[in-house]
Amino acid sequence: MNARVASLDRIFHALGDASRLGMVEHLSRGEASVKELARPLDMGLPSVLKHLRVLEDSGLVRSTKTGRVRTYRVEPGALAAIDRWVSRRRAGWNRRFDRLDALLAEEDDTPPTRKQP
Amino acid sequence: MNARVASLDRIFHALGDASRLGMVEHLSRGEASVKELARPLDMGLPSVLKHLRVLEDSGLVRSTKTGRVRTYRVEPGALAAIDRWVSRRRAGWNRRFDRLDALLAEEDDTPPTRKQP
Repeated sequence: MNARVASLDRIFHALGDASRLGMVEHLSRGEASVKELARPLDMGLPSVLKHLRVLEDSGLVRSTKTGRVRTYRVEPGALAAIDRWVSRRRAGWNRRFDRLDALLAEEDDTPPTRKQP
Repeated sequence: MNARVASLDRIFHALGDASRLGMVEHLSRGEASVKELARPLDMGLPSVLKHLRVLEDSGLVRSTKTGRVRTYRVEPGALAAIDRWVSRRRAGWNRRFDRLDALLAEEDDTPPTRKQP
C-alpha cells in the first residue's frame, strides 16, 4: 500500500460524486490541467478546484505546478488499493460457496440408511 | 450489468463511510441480521438502519425478511461493477504508457543525422 494513499473509505468517498468520478475517468486517459478538467463540467472554477482538492486529499490524483499551470494525474496506487479491496471481498464470497459445496458433498457421502433412521 | 445495481457514483458514495465499508466487509464473510451487523458498531439502531438503507439503495447489499428477522447479503454484481470500472481505468493508464513506449521506440529508430540536423 502506498503510504500517501488515504484510507479506503476516503478513496470511495472521493469517487462517490458524479463530477469527481468523471474527472478520474478523464485523467485515466491522460494528465490534464484544471482548465481541461473544467471544460466538460457545468460548474464554476471554485467548485472544480474544491472537487480536485477532495480527489487529491484522498490520494486518487496528484498534481504538479509548472509556471501558472497545475497538471493533474491519476495515482495508480489508489486504483490498486480499490482492486485489492474488491478482490478480498470476492474471495470471502467464494470461500462461503466453497464451504457450501463441501457441506453438500458431505451430505452426498452420508449413507441413505442414516438419512432415514 | 445487473439492472438493480445503481450508478457507480452511488455505489462509491455508499462505500465512502467507514461504518458502511465495515458492514460490507462483514457481509462479504457471510450474510447477517441487523442485530449482528450492529454489534461491533458504536451507534444506535436507527443509525444502523439508515446506513443499511444507503447500502441497499446503491445495490451493494440485498435483504430478505423471515418472520421478524431481516437478513442482509452482499450483491456480487455491485462488486463486479467496481471491478470493471477499475480495470477500465487501469487499461487507459496502460494504453498511455504503451503510446509512450511506442514514441520512445520511434525516437530510437530515428537516424542520428536527423536528431542533429
